[in-house]
Amino acid sequence: MTTPLSLGILISGGGTNLQAIIDAIERKDLSAHIRIVVSNRSDAYGLARAQRHGLSTALLAHTDFSSREEFDQHLVTLLHEHGVEMVILAGFMRLLSARFIQAFPHRILNIHPALLPAFPGLRAQRQALERGVRISGATVHLVDEKMDHGPIIMQAAVPVYPDDTEDSLSARILAQEHRIYPAAIKLFAEGRVVVRGNSVRIRDERHWPQTAFQSPAAV
Amino acid sequence: MTTPLSLGILISGGGTNLQAIIDAIERKDLSAHIRIVVSNRSDAYGLARAQRHGLSTALLAHTDFSSREEFDQHLVTLLHEHGVEMVILAGFMRLLSARFIQAFPHRILNIHPALLPAFPGLRAQRQALERGVRISGATVHLVDEKMDHGPIIMQAAVPVYPDDTEDSLSARILAQEHRIYPAAIKLFAEGRVVVRGNSVRIRDERHWPQTAFQSPAAV
Repeated sequence: MTTPLSLGILISGGGTNLQAIIDAIERKDLSAHIRIVVSNRSDAYGLARAQRHGLSTALLAHTDFSSREEFDQHLVTLLHEHGVEMVILAGFMRLLSARFIQAFPHRILNIHPALLPAFPGLRAQRQALERGVRISGATVHLVDEKMDHGPIIMQAAVPVYPDDTEDSLSARILAQEHRIYPAAIKLFAEGRVVVRGNSVRIRDERHWPQTAFQSPAAV
Repeated sequence: MTTPLSLGILISGGGTNLQAIIDAIERKDLSAHIRIVVSNRSDAYGLARAQRHGLSTALLAHTDFSSREEFDQHLVTLLHEHGVEMVILAGFMRLLSARFIQAFPHRILNIHPALLPAFPGLRAQRQALERGVRISGATVHLVDEKMDHGPIIMQAAVPVYPDDTEDSLSARILAQEHRIYPAAIKLFAEGRVVVRGNSVRIRDERHWPQTAFQSPAAV
């Protein structure tokens, strides 16, 4: 039906979202090819995950480059050489330059462990606990030049409990990240995402207006 | 088991949240008495709702007072005279002074049509649409001296659709407001709310960690 989407996945660490995307492709839920997995850290366990599945990998250590622009230019070249159409940030702990972002217009996805615009930046789960919210979640969004900004593609909400730790809340959110990141990429693979400014329309979206939950639950 | 909680409800308009609270009390879901319903506007339809259910009402027109402090002092006196233990803001469109807030420490509840800390202030639903979020909701919180701030008691999440209007999203959120506002008051009536700084613990809370939803739905 559709040509598989060519992905380049950028990681810095464990790569559990990378694994979720690999799994979705292998079980044929997602029509995509991972053309290359790039890490900026040599000790990123995600590199081993990629190699285990026979994927091309590259290490691009930012310490080998004199500037962010030089690093980003090499990264763009590498991704272009591998035919990457869409860039997936999966725990990639580097800010990208405007030049990088402009090289893949509306084709860089990120996932953030909060319901943006709440709790942008680092340690979003901890921020949520410190504010005492009862619902948080995860957000897949297109990357623009501001951090944790850009058009929102998909979100998932989870309850927060007063006795949550940063780890327990992170685990609950991560389970949803593993669901929505492949699902959001799938919408692009199916050509169903229409971006207009900050607003994203999904072609042939089904509505489930009865969906809702509260936290704490009624007891 | 417990002594019914004595409520004072402040309104400025239609009072659908007032109606939801009246309904919860009448069907014995919520052990509370509404001691008085106060409006700062003579044309608030919520006054008629209150009278239909035999509740005491008062009109306290802010235009009759020379200052916010004077208005708030009269309001405190009126609520105290009626034995009000807990103040419920139900579409009350006035900022309350520090003096008012200090007269009911941790005993003033507000509901806001967004998942705070996202979209504080006016027209939260419109703010959510303009940002293009896919999940929003409602928040019941204790009032402190900052607007749409204070410890969060309960939240509900709903999906947002790209073709939502401010009206359609407001209606979806309002349906949840009508559920969580009586439910949050019930937690106070049952003596189950423990506030520590911004963090709120609910005694004997049941966890439903499987609760979650995503928007757009997987299709």
